[in-house]
Formats: sequence, C-alpha cells, structure tokens
Amino acid sequence: MNVNGVPYRTIRVADDGWSVEIIDQTALPHEFRLVRLTAVDDTAKAIQTMQVRGAPLIGATAAYGLALAMRADPSERAFDRAAERLLATRPTAINLRWAVERMRAVLRRTPATDRPETAYREAALIAEDDVATCRRIGEHGLALIRDAASRANGKPVQVLTHCNAGWLATVDYGTALSPLYQAHDAGIPIQVWVDETRPRNQGSALTAWELAAHGVPHTIVADSAGGHLMQRGAVDLCITGTDRTTATGDVCNKIGTYLKALAAFDNGVPFYVAVPHSSIDWSVREGGDIPIEERDASEVTHMTGRTAEGAMVSVEIAAPGSPAANFAFDVTPARLVTGLITDRGVCPATEAGLRLLYPEAAGAA
Amino acid sequence: MNVNGVPYRTIRVADDGWSVEIIDQTALPHEFRLVRLTAVDDTAKAIQTMQVRGAPLIGATAAYGLALAMRADPSERAFDRAAERLLATRPTAINLRWAVERMRAVLRRTPATDRPETAYREAALIAEDDVATCRRIGEHGLALIRDAASRANGKPVQVLTHCNAGWLATVDYGTALSPLYQAHDAGIPIQVWVDETRPRNQGSALTAWELAAHGVPHTIVADSAGGHLMQRGAVDLCITGTDRTTATGDVCNKIGTYLKALAAFDNGVPFYVAVPHSSIDWSVREGGDIPIEERDASEVTHMTGRTAEGAMVSVEIAAPGSPAANFAFDVTPARLVTGLITDRGVCPATEAGLRLLYPEAAGAA
Repeated sequence: MNVNGVPYRTIRVADDGWSVEIIDQTALPHEFRLVRLTAVDDTAKAIQTMQVRGAPLIGATAAYGLALAMRADPSERAFDRAAERLLATRPTAINLRWAVERMRAVLRRTPATDRPETAYREAALIAEDDVATCRRIGEHGLALIRDAASRANGKPVQVLTHCNAGWLATVDYGTALSPLYQAHDAGIPIQVWVDETRPRNQGSALTAWELAAHGVPHTIVADSAGGHLMQRGAVDLCITGTDRTTATGDVCNKIGTYLKALAAFDNGVPFYVAVPHSSIDWSVREGGDIPIEERDASEVTHMTGRTAEGAMVSVEIAAPGSPAANFAFDVTPARLVTGLITDRGVCPATEAGLRLLYPEAAGAA
Repeated sequence: MNVNGVPYRTIRVADDGWSVEIIDQTALPHEFRLVRLTAVDDTAKAIQTMQVRGAPLIGATAAYGLALAMRADPSERAFDRAAERLLATRPTAINLRWAVERMRAVLRRTPATDRPETAYREAALIAEDDVATCRRIGEHGLALIRDAASRANGKPVQVLTHCNAGWLATVDYGTALSPLYQAHDAGIPIQVWVDETRPRNQGSALTAWELAAHGVPHTIVADSAGGHLMQRGAVDLCITGTDRTTATGDVCNKIGTYLKALAAFDNGVPFYVAVPHSSIDWSVREGGDIPIEERDASEVTHMTGRTAEGAMVSVEIAAPGSPAANFAFDVTPARLVTGLITDRGVCPATEAGLRLLYPEAAGAA
C-alpha cells in the first residue's frame, strides 16, 4: 500500500538482490524506517522484537530468513539450525511453522548447490501467495460491507477491529482491513473503531497510522470501550485477524479478541474473522490446546512514546515494582464467530465449513 | 489505611480547622502528595481533574466543597451556585448528586449564620458514613472470600478487579477492595488480578499501589486479559465497584466492566459488585438511561509516566493526529451480576433484592 504516495510492501528483497528490507514497525507511528536484514539471526530478532509482526508477515519473514541462511550455508544442518532458531521466536502464530515447513519440503528435494536460489524463489512465492490471499479476502469481505451498507441508510458502516490485521501485518493489503480498504476505494462510506490494543498498542499505533495513510475515517478507543459501543448500536460489524485458526473454527488472536466476540454475541453484532489459509492449523481441534505466548511484563508496566519535543522516551506507567503478567493471545470459541472470511469465500466457523472450502486439507494433520 | 505505616484518609479537614486536605491522586503512584483546598472552586477542579476520584470520594469531596462555600458566603444563592458548579464536574457518579442533595436538605432548614458550622458537621457525617459503609461491605464480602477459600484447597483465592474501588476511591477501606483487605488481614491467602484500566490506568497506578502498600499479593494485567484468565480457570471471583446502580440492579461502572462481566458469565465465574447505599439511584430503572461521561481524547492518545531518570513526562502513544473517543463508563446489565455486596448484606442484583435490604427506599425517587 502507499506511504506518502509511494507503494510499499512490508518485506522485499533489497536492490542488492539478496539482503531483505523490512519496515521497522517498532518505530511506527512516529518514524517510517526501513531496515536491512543480512542473516537469519537478523530475521529471528526482527520477529522476536516485533520489528515485523502479524501472523502472515511473520511467515514471510521466516521464509526469507531461511533464504539468507541457505545463502550463507546450504547444508541441511544449517537449515535445521535456522529453522529451530526461527520457530523459537513466537509460539502462537501458526504461519511461522507453515512457512518453515513449506521451505523445508522444497529444499529437502533440492541439491545443496541450488538451495540458495530455490530458497529465495520459494520465499518470494510465499510472499506473493500472501498478497493474493489478502486481496481475495478483501474481495469476499467487501460483499459483507456492501450488505451492511445497504442496511445503513446512507450512514457510514461502522466496523470495529482489534489489534492490527492490516497491510503491516501481512506482505500487502492486510487480512481484516483488506475488505475495508476495498470498501473505501469502492466509495462505500465506512468508519472504523480502532481498539488501542494494549499493551503494545498495535491498534492506536499501526492500524490508525495505516488507515490515516489511506484516508479511511477511524477513531481510536480504549480496549474496554467496544462493549459499550455495541450496546449503544454504534457497531455494524466486527472484523479481526487471526494468528491461528483450528480445524473446528476456534480463533486464536491478539489478547482481548474473545471479549469483543462476547460483546458482539450479546448484542447481535456480526463478528467476522479474516483467515488466510496459512493461519489454519488442521492439526489442532481445540483452541484451548494452542500455546499462548507470554511476553515480558515490562510491556505492561512501561510505555514508549514521543514527547512534545519529539524525543522517543520510555516511561513507567504502573506503581513502581508492580508485578505484571502479559498474555499475548486468547482463544475465541467458534460458537461466537459469525463467519470466517477466507481467500476462498466466507464460511461458518465450523469444521464442515472449513473442509468445504479446503477439501484438499482432508488429508492434512 | 496506612501509607508507610502512617494511617491516612483520602480527605480530611486540615489542622487549621477549616481547609480541606486531599491526596493528589494524579501524582500517584510516583509521588504521595497532599493538597490543600480552600474554596469550592478548588474542590470542583480536584474532582474534574481527578485529583480525587471514585464515586464515594467524589461525594465526600463535594460535601466539603459546599462547606467551604458556606464558610465564604452562607446565602442560599451561594449554595445553589456552588452546587451547580460541583454537579457539572462529572455526570455519571450518582454519589455526587446524593451528597449535594443531602447537604441541601440539611442547610435549607438551617439559619444562614449557622450554615458554615452545620455544613462542616454534615460533610463530616457523610465522610464517616462512607467509612462505616465500606467497613460493612468488607465484612459482608469477606464471607464470599471465605467461601471461595474453602473450595480452593489451600491455594490462594484468585480475585479479578477492574479500575480502583479501593480506599483511594472512598474515604477509607474501599468498596470492592474492602473484602480483600479484610480477607488478607484474616490470614486468607488471596491473589488479585488488577486490570490496568485504560485510559487513566487507575488499576496499575492506584489499585496496585494500594495493594502493595498493604502487602496484598497482586498482578497487573492488560484490560484485555481477563477473559483469557477466566477461560483458563485462573479467576475464582470478580469484584468491582460501581458509580451508579439502578433500582433494578444494573451497574454503571468504569468502562470495560461490562466485558469482564460477560466473560465471567461465559465461564461460570461469580461476578460481584460492591455497592455503597450512596451509589444506588432509585430514580433510574434502566442502566441505558444513565448519562455516560465522555472525557478528553488526549487521555487515550497520550500517557504520562516516569522516565528512568525520575522525571514525569507525557508522551504521545498513538499515531500523531489520530482521532480518539473516550467513554468513561459502561453499563453491566443486572442479568450478568451474581450479587451486590452492600453495607446491609449481599443481595441478588434485582429490584426485589435491593428493596428487601433498603425498605425505606420504597418512597424514594
């Protein structure tokens, strides 16, 4: 998508033809900074520190990390070491494992001398696959926005989203935000309630930045506000992303998604989840079986932002020395999800619904 | 309660016998600072800027504000002007109106010359009433904690609370936290999940500070985490405060309370609300009819905290120029509330339940 009128993707091979260029998302929204990664360790650190984040982008970054590893040493041992290093960075998003296993399958049947070239080609395919997937999610989701618009009597369709599932979370277009960009571009008036998304504020920092850059009307609210908005009829539908979706339709996504789904259900507001095929884990049936990443407590007790003088500063916002816990994801049971917006269409959040769209997955897991 | 071993209340008449001393809660948790108020305008500003906050403490502060007003000018016109100024500060908490009307009723039948003295005496009675009310809420709530402890097999009782309904929100003891202090003092092991409570962080700043000062084990979590904790069986019960409770048991409290009540209901976790009699609005039946205060958007987009060097700094945490909305309260429907912990005992969140405990209210409203 465009930044100051220039089209960008969140990840690409740099002009030197081999190093990998990303947008440092920890510097946003205050600074738009590109960073060059030259080794698999750089990519692992970029994932861990959340310079790149969002399940689909994590997958693409891991793929390019393996390409960098193969360029340095195309041996199987080097691949295994790199894969292990990458898989350890973030336990919840399934796209990471999906991308690593896809790379492994291709490279296993490739002679060592060809592996660097093959790895770059496969990483590029993974990135292109994500772009196409997100574009199709946008097309299928657009129909839902059109529907809501037809009932809105000319008023903007009000959509609530949580965390950032925009183009910054993917290679381009985004998952949950892709239908919103398409609706906006099609001239359908929309207004987006952006959950702040504590503790890392992906909503107020990234989603608000993205939507502003594209000119989509939006309003940031505290994570606690969504229930009130739905009670007062100010939300027509919710759309979120997902870090891992089970074969039965349970959705693991950024902490707090479950609470919004409960409020949507309680108020009869449709709750949709945008699901790229790479985030479906056919091997897991129960959302409760998904490992939930716990991150550092300092993300809760401290906050980084910009002073009036323009300096970036970290401040302590909790009572000094307070213990804190930082669960990064929760599971929304399928019963609370109105539908899954996939790259192959919208389906109910059920095993039957998913299998109908992805019949080839019958043998998976 | 104690601060560094010295007993404090949140409000008192200063040693000069007439000015009013408060704890500046906007300076907490980083600084414990007492402030002297000498005119009704000071008290109105203290309420508006949240140097004092919490429904019961707002009521007591308003009462002392009227005493200061009567000391300056004991006329009825001065009273009306002062009352109007105070009532405009915060629209949602009913205690404010309750305290002002109680002062009005007493002063109306008092000759002008006696009004200053009567006003100070009545304000002191309101403050003492709050202390006694909170102590009794603690006694009645303690039985619920004991109950939970008997089922916890020696493990700490895990309680989730939202916002600050501790002694800082009242004159002393607190509402929601009063049972927890009593349980802790009685040797019942407890562990408190403290919701951060964006955007003003009353949880991580005030509740965590209070609990630490009293030695009660606690852990701060993002507001989004409560649902996950309840899904994983890490919460035995929830207790929150209330800014206004309707005659039918609907509870208006800090934004986000409704989401926690939904999660508690979905997971079979008991959800209690600590209700001082002064926060019951017998004139309102539907929670949806309560006016919801909207505060400045900058509370969402900016955050104040302490740098590593000890300086207090405000930083911008959202995408620059982002629009934000800041709804301060929401309504939890009575159907989601397991029980109301009042100063007269625990009752169901129903009109019948409340009327049984407060039969004299039959004529009210």
